[in-house]
Amino acid sequence: MNDELTNVQFGGDGATVRIIDQTLLPNETRTLELSEAYELREAIVSLRVRGAPAIGIFAAYALCALARKSKASDYEGFSAEVLKYSAFLDSARPTAVNLGAQLRRMEKLVESLSGARIPLILEAMREEAELIRREDIEMCRTISSNGITLIEDGYGIMTYCNAGPLATSRYGTALGPILMGQERGMSLRAYCCETRPLLQGARLTAYELDAAGVDCTLICDNMASTVMKEGKIDAVFAGCDRLARNGDAANKIGTGGLAILAKHYGVPFYVFCPSSTFDPDCLTGSDIEIELREPGEIKKMFFDRPIAPAGVKCYNPSFDVTDNSLITAIVTEKGIFRAPYEQSLRGAGVVRVRITP
Amino acid sequence: MNDELTNVQFGGDGATVRIIDQTLLPNETRTLELSEAYELREAIVSLRVRGAPAIGIFAAYALCALARKSKASDYEGFSAEVLKYSAFLDSARPTAVNLGAQLRRMEKLVESLSGARIPLILEAMREEAELIRREDIEMCRTISSNGITLIEDGYGIMTYCNAGPLATSRYGTALGPILMGQERGMSLRAYCCETRPLLQGARLTAYELDAAGVDCTLICDNMASTVMKEGKIDAVFAGCDRLARNGDAANKIGTGGLAILAKHYGVPFYVFCPSSTFDPDCLTGSDIEIELREPGEIKKMFFDRPIAPAGVKCYNPSFDVTDNSLITAIVTEKGIFRAPYEQSLRGAGVVRVRITP
Repeated sequence: MNDELTNVQFGGDGATVRIIDQTLLPNETRTLELSEAYELREAIVSLRVRGAPAIGIFAAYALCALARKSKASDYEGFSAEVLKYSAFLDSARPTAVNLGAQLRRMEKLVESLSGARIPLILEAMREEAELIRREDIEMCRTISSNGITLIEDGYGIMTYCNAGPLATSRYGTALGPILMGQERGMSLRAYCCETRPLLQGARLTAYELDAAGVDCTLICDNMASTVMKEGKIDAVFAGCDRLARNGDAANKIGTGGLAILAKHYGVPFYVFCPSSTFDPDCLTGSDIEIELREPGEIKKMFFDRPIAPAGVKCYNPSFDVTDNSLITAIVTEKGIFRAPYEQSLRGAGVVRVRITP
Repeated sequence: MNDELTNVQFGGDGATVRIIDQTLLPNETRTLELSEAYELREAIVSLRVRGAPAIGIFAAYALCALARKSKASDYEGFSAEVLKYSAFLDSARPTAVNLGAQLRRMEKLVESLSGARIPLILEAMREEAELIRREDIEMCRTISSNGITLIEDGYGIMTYCNAGPLATSRYGTALGPILMGQERGMSLRAYCCETRPLLQGARLTAYELDAAGVDCTLICDNMASTVMKEGKIDAVFAGCDRLARNGDAANKIGTGGLAILAKHYGVPFYVFCPSSTFDPDCLTGSDIEIELREPGEIKKMFFDRPIAPAGVKCYNPSFDVTDNSLITAIVTEKGIFRAPYEQSLRGAGVVRVRITP
């Protein structure tokens, strides 16, 4: 496991947050040290830090660093500032549940310490943020252990976007079983879809798998059907940014199409996520807000010259929703859930506490 | 219609072939004037000229230019040289039927003029090549007229790769009905899939539609499912590089996946091609040779820096085969054919004469 790639650490005795700038990978491994509100939020918006779990951890760390800036002399002033910073960070991206969920958790902690001395609250916040990160590592390990029961030696596994160590804090979710399988000496073949427009599959997943010694092959997203048709794929592993009550799963744009192809070819399609990805406020996937991003990401980003006429319109949704009917199983740290998801998820206690009305 | 974009012309009184270098579009419109065998073949290999019909026309023109280089004093010597050049050009790309078919047509012409004076054969070859081009224009016009009966005002049409004027000699095949509809004042919305790895959809199709004033929106290939799910697409229009007897259709990699998505969402999926694309030697799509191209096209081409670790393997098939069961209809200049294709295509006389054993 690439420990040096472990994302999100405190720097400057808690005054800053350190991340690897994921937009520069795999060509450059640059560590950023961020402390200002605008640059912490920008790191999320620009995907310098990305992956639903990693964004959640980062937001908790960022809120700690920002809370330290407070010059408030009493709890009320301090609490108001924390809420203001939290809302600012929360507005960075809408789709992943983790960003808002971890910020709510931090807000709730502050609320529970009403009237306490500010240095004590700051210390508790830091401990909570570090706990969130440790919990994530443990969750990823358990998800990986659960997921590894779904694969066998010799399996070809298609991956999408990045749900590896860079998207979490270690192991990853959908990439976890592959990395754990590699550690255990299994012989696996990974096929990484490059994941346009920002190429997280090529830049991050192929990078992580290659570094771990996994036999991996990069393909363009439009080659997935052919690779499945050729019988090279035994399972598709995808992550998840928000899970509705009925099992509809929002993830990186293109995931839903991949699930349709998998169903067509009879290839099992598995969704991997911490149980905290479950959002009881969303009855179905249509309740999930899909982030729309800039046309420039399609037309220019990562290219040395424009790839389309300047005036051409682009449609750039960042996520899509995979219908529960296309999902073979949902793998969480609480177990492996199968349809009907409305019952199985509820029965297993995979229900996020609804904190805000 | 962009007449200035019309591909493939003779230059230097027939000693050269002029094309627009399609690899530089849309940023630069550079005309190449080619005369040497290696550079004529390289233009096909590197996709400076591309699109099944355009490659066929170009090959016929190229063979004329090369035949003029012959220093042979008799028919036998001349004919042997023409066959040698023809085989050399034919080896450039394997999947599109047109390359070999138009070269066979030129060879057959030379064979039919056995014993004739060489200047006369050269003149006949030039006339034949220009006839091939004129036939293509006429064929595209008829295909467009047939195709336009499948659409209505207000339709959203998804396009894939490039099957427009640049891929043919005018109008195009799959793009023909959209361009003809625009000329007739129809209100159409085109959604262009960018078509990785070489981005013909972004660079060429969006360019052609934009220039013609069509309302067009560029998307990444992995967004096709979402756009269909949102109800924006009334039909998918794709080209075809080789058509098997049973209606299986080889086209740019990703076409087959798009057809599966269209079927899933109940969107009609139409294949457009001249009847000459039909290959009676291929019983099914599995008889069609699929070209595998360089990994660098995925990892580096059009990008200002590598997008994946240098050591990562890539799989880069250039075409795929769409199963006939996924095709709503095949639109040719001889009419619109529906399943069962084995019978409908045969009954309509869409059978290419098998020239070589």
